[in-house]
Amino acid sequence: MTAGLKINLPRLIGRIRDLAEIGALPGGGCCRLALSDADKQGRDLVRSWMVELGLVVSIDRIGNIIGTRPGRENLPPVMVGSHIDTVATGGIYDGNLGVLAGLEVIECLNDAGFETRYPIAVGIFTNEEGARFTPDMMGSAVHQGSLPLAEALAAVDKDGLCLEVELARIGYAGEEIGDAACVHRFFELHIEQGPVLEEAGVEIGAVTGVQGISWTAYNIAGVSNHAGTTPMRLRKDAGLAAAEIAVAVRRIVTDIGGNQVGTVGALNLSPNLINVIAREAGVSVDLRNTDDAILKQAEARVSEAVEEIAMREGVTITAKPLVRFAPVDFDPAMVDLVEASARAAGRSVLRMPSGAGHDAQMFAPNCPTAMIFVPSKDGISHNVNEFTPDDQIEAGANVLLDVVRMEAGE
Amino acid sequence: MTAGLKINLPRLIGRIRDLAEIGALPGGGCCRLALSDADKQGRDLVRSWMVELGLVVSIDRIGNIIGTRPGRENLPPVMVGSHIDTVATGGIYDGNLGVLAGLEVIECLNDAGFETRYPIAVGIFTNEEGARFTPDMMGSAVHQGSLPLAEALAAVDKDGLCLEVELARIGYAGEEIGDAACVHRFFELHIEQGPVLEEAGVEIGAVTGVQGISWTAYNIAGVSNHAGTTPMRLRKDAGLAAAEIAVAVRRIVTDIGGNQVGTVGALNLSPNLINVIAREAGVSVDLRNTDDAILKQAEARVSEAVEEIAMREGVTITAKPLVRFAPVDFDPAMVDLVEASARAAGRSVLRMPSGAGHDAQMFAPNCPTAMIFVPSKDGISHNVNEFTPDDQIEAGANVLLDVVRMEAGE
Repeated sequence: MTAGLKINLPRLIGRIRDLAEIGALPGGGCCRLALSDADKQGRDLVRSWMVELGLVVSIDRIGNIIGTRPGRENLPPVMVGSHIDTVATGGIYDGNLGVLAGLEVIECLNDAGFETRYPIAVGIFTNEEGARFTPDMMGSAVHQGSLPLAEALAAVDKDGLCLEVELARIGYAGEEIGDAACVHRFFELHIEQGPVLEEAGVEIGAVTGVQGISWTAYNIAGVSNHAGTTPMRLRKDAGLAAAEIAVAVRRIVTDIGGNQVGTVGALNLSPNLINVIAREAGVSVDLRNTDDAILKQAEARVSEAVEEIAMREGVTITAKPLVRFAPVDFDPAMVDLVEASARAAGRSVLRMPSGAGHDAQMFAPNCPTAMIFVPSKDGISHNVNEFTPDDQIEAGANVLLDVVRMEAGE
Repeated sequence: MTAGLKINLPRLIGRIRDLAEIGALPGGGCCRLALSDADKQGRDLVRSWMVELGLVVSIDRIGNIIGTRPGRENLPPVMVGSHIDTVATGGIYDGNLGVLAGLEVIECLNDAGFETRYPIAVGIFTNEEGARFTPDMMGSAVHQGSLPLAEALAAVDKDGLCLEVELARIGYAGEEIGDAACVHRFFELHIEQGPVLEEAGVEIGAVTGVQGISWTAYNIAGVSNHAGTTPMRLRKDAGLAAAEIAVAVRRIVTDIGGNQVGTVGALNLSPNLINVIAREAGVSVDLRNTDDAILKQAEARVSEAVEEIAMREGVTITAKPLVRFAPVDFDPAMVDLVEASARAAGRSVLRMPSGAGHDAQMFAPNCPTAMIFVPSKDGISHNVNEFTPDDQIEAGANVLLDVVRMEAGE
């Protein structure tokens, strides 16, 4: 009987804290950019834990580390995974929690002497953040066949360093060839990175899918002129057009409502001087929705607004599509399983989409997949102040243990 | 008889081109930031021309260079002046034209053996641009007593270099004490730096005054969060508030109409990332009008809009007043004189306010003052492409010669 099996919270928190010491930042966060020296040290540490737990460790050609606990039968594994790379000013939970909770699941089963029918694997996926190399979720995308290996290896960082070379430099250019069909189930425990659970006072998010993401960069060419000497009617103000796009995005997404979100997070004027009408402006638009049809509608309405703004101000606006991920739906049966497990443990649950991208979405098209969210204090993530209380981590890790145990079978 | 006296265009253009070689930029412009090595070389060259023309040269304690041609009587001079410092990517006409046309006036009178009752002085005023040291129009402001000398000398550039030290370093820390009451008339010939004359197809602007200028910097404190995971209703988006301020400024100034102008030329988001709601934003507002009451109304309406935006988005906005110059009216008799002189020469004339600040406005409260504008191609200034055709320079310089000769008396 293992129904009463529970994770060991101090052991899990201990591993989170030990890993957080590598690349530690003042204030409590971490900087372990993908394939940096700190990332190598983090990988070495977690790999050493995998070996201690008796996992069979393999490294594939994009540097993903997979530690596998054999099952009673030679079947595809139930996989638990996430990432340990961080953004430049990252927190200590994002990604790391999913990997280390996976190890905790293994150690619990080991301690209980519990064998499973399916193998259980813990995956560490390369460059999930995309903070150093583009695209993000790179390791899981290559693993699941949605990104060609050669393209990923050719990625270059801002200093001109090539991913393939960096992978070899830190000793993680493996030989294994990933197999998209080789996973039985995929589960990822992650912090929400948003305020929804905290605001609702709910302990567990049963993640129904990942929002579709549409990123477009607009470049606006106007005419630079003196702010004092140029009559309003003769202006072609690139800065005003940029501001109008930002305001239009807010108006359109508010009008669409539901879970449509839209953000202008980056806006740059040139020459950016108080008394000079901007000659040029750059503005980024981030639109997300769980419903692809509505997302397309939002994209179309923003495009129309941009055209109308260009016409009215007499500026030239060019659009450059940057990223387009269609929404991903997780397997309803797996989402139900997460919800039922949490409720059985007496936890409050909210079925919710993920607003951020995660490795799990790369697995969803190929195998039954789900995610478990735990709350983020004040919704803060990608920030040294990222925080989730220990008891909420415990709740999430126990749900992970439970669903893995059930799907791996006795 | 000197009524038929005309300036020597090739000589004037020759001096403009010779001065433009100092600090020359690719593409034809100039960089002679105030009190830089290039500014020193420019000053040395123009001073040497003053000496060649027989002017008595004095340098005052803020580094203004005044070259004086004695009159028949020991009276305050008719002064012609402007500046030779430039912005970092300046043109070759802004300021330089006014100084070098002054020398051309002197040389014409010298060549004709024409003596005047009043002395004629040509002034080069320190740091008019304000591109390196704040405030702008510094030399003329100190000369005319509206800025304390000690305050000007204490100005520090972005590298921490002090104006007083830089003035001594380039050898222009003079001994003279300016006397605000010592000028009989002040005239400044300048390029328009705007598109009005060109658009109207007019050759000469008889400048009626200088617009009042109001600069305010707004700092917006919001809450940084993930663009995907933060529902619209929970956002406190500093970037959106900044964009809304820019759009509100345009709406308000368009609504006020007349010659009210308003510009948001600088707008900065932090962290300025595509997928992060801005935590902080800075936005500058530049408002100008020739009518102080309407300018105050514009300021009040922008303030109200800012408050309303802060309330709606839940952000904190703090306003920092940067610059406030009340509008300046030039002496109507002097403006009439400029207009009559231009018309007598068969030139088309437009009475117009200046949208930009100029040294002349510092003289206006203390002596009869006027300015002469010549067209700027495409309204472009503070740019290496700044251009005024030779025949328009000739027209403007001849008006300057005419009004100076008349006011200096025979």
